[in-house]
Amino acid sequence: MFATFAEATTVTAHGEGRYGGEIASGWDIGGNANGGYLLALATRALADAVGRPPLSVTAHYLAPGLPGPVEIDVDVIRAGRRMATVSGRLRSGGNDVLAVLGTFADQAVGEGSAIDGAPPRLPPIEQCVRMSPPVDSGFHHRVRGWVRPEDAGFKDGRASGKPEMAGWFELPDQAPIDEFGLLMVADAFAPVVFNHGGFPVGWSPTLELTVHVRGRPEPGPLRCRFFSQFIEHGLFDEQGEIWDSAGRLVAQSRQLALVPRG
Amino acid sequence: MFATFAEATTVTAHGEGRYGGEIASGWDIGGNANGGYLLALATRALADAVGRPPLSVTAHYLAPGLPGPVEIDVDVIRAGRRMATVSGRLRSGGNDVLAVLGTFADQAVGEGSAIDGAPPRLPPIEQCVRMSPPVDSGFHHRVRGWVRPEDAGFKDGRASGKPEMAGWFELPDQAPIDEFGLLMVADAFAPVVFNHGGFPVGWSPTLELTVHVRGRPEPGPLRCRFFSQFIEHGLFDEQGEIWDSAGRLVAQSRQLALVPRG
Repeated sequence: MFATFAEATTVTAHGEGRYGGEIASGWDIGGNANGGYLLALATRALADAVGRPPLSVTAHYLAPGLPGPVEIDVDVIRAGRRMATVSGRLRSGGNDVLAVLGTFADQAVGEGSAIDGAPPRLPPIEQCVRMSPPVDSGFHHRVRGWVRPEDAGFKDGRASGKPEMAGWFELPDQAPIDEFGLLMVADAFAPVVFNHGGFPVGWSPTLELTVHVRGRPEPGPLRCRFFSQFIEHGLFDEQGEIWDSAGRLVAQSRQLALVPRG
Repeated sequence: MFATFAEATTVTAHGEGRYGGEIASGWDIGGNANGGYLLALATRALADAVGRPPLSVTAHYLAPGLPGPVEIDVDVIRAGRRMATVSGRLRSGGNDVLAVLGTFADQAVGEGSAIDGAPPRLPPIEQCVRMSPPVDSGFHHRVRGWVRPEDAGFKDGRASGKPEMAGWFELPDQAPIDEFGLLMVADAFAPVVFNHGGFPVGWSPTLELTVHVRGRPEPGPLRCRFFSQFIEHGLFDEQGEIWDSAGRLVAQSRQLALVPRG
């Protein structure tokens, strides 16, 4: 009845940089489509226009995305031999929902690596807490996320006190998660400020989200960690790391969002 | 003889979202204008169009910026009561140099703060090493940067082994550093991969740079720290924190760049 991630992010080229698609029903949190899902949907069109996967994509959120048809206007700014830079706008019912700017290329462009980081230590999935939203919402039925027990108490007034969320993520039926799936995962967990404890658990609008795709995940559940360092004057950063089952960092994210007002 | 930062980032509105400006001579590193300077120049036009300072700005770099006149095309995507989202393109001699997307608003939008971080510990300026570029370049004569002694050895083949650069920054004559100045500072230090030790000291092109402006600095030199966690397959992230003299975080940056090839 509800579309899978691949179905729910399908776009159709109409020529001259115009694409059509649909914000699928059931991908919402409290009625509004998940921000990472919207980013994935828009980015499909940009990637299609240049035939390359996303490497670094930034979205600025303009209005909530409601289920229904959308138009995505794509502008190929530059298409080089290895990389292409593309901007786009996702509109719904005549309203701008999302503005996107990205560079598209394979993630491996050269040699040399040095990693200062590691996947988060997580209890086994069966000891984690399945994510479910504080309000009626379809999104958490479309995806499968589990957070560490200490990160799940905010719903019962037991915030961990640390603005952090870490846990596991997969799609139903272990559907493969590609570069577009990673864009969604970057915004799939509850806002980390819920675990700060000093703010109400409510809508926390993302202003800006940037995702660097660093690899295509190996099959298996992803290990994710999101955290904030700087909550100030009503705004917070949320930094994210997404690691695949082989222990490799596959995406880095960072967003700027508004703390909930209740 | 050479333009100050304020002069070198002046733009003139020509109406209908078109701005003129100039890549000033003397703001280059090895002939190409510094990437943070270019971002500041372009962002001046976007900010002027909506009468608000930058809050979060992302640039994708398309071509090196050479001294000379530029056109900046600005598209106001949405101008709300508190925030405005704007995209823009900086062109020079008919070539796209920079694509920019940003949200513009005052940095204080609400209440509540929680900081998990601190300014880097730095020796006094007089014990640090004045930044100077590995090649003939004007940029480091236009600005004043000093790095910790342990971060300065890479020029003599003594990389610290840690992809990090930390130090002080100010403008000549203690000129005030505003939101636009912070955009420049975000790319003003040498690439952190120079201190990894495994790569040649050479051009390290920025693909994407995002800066969140978290405050307007108090007068006095800035404390800056840049570091990379994930160098992989020829790409690296460079994360940055910029703190003012009052000990407040005033900007967070992150870029994705190519490791130098020699």
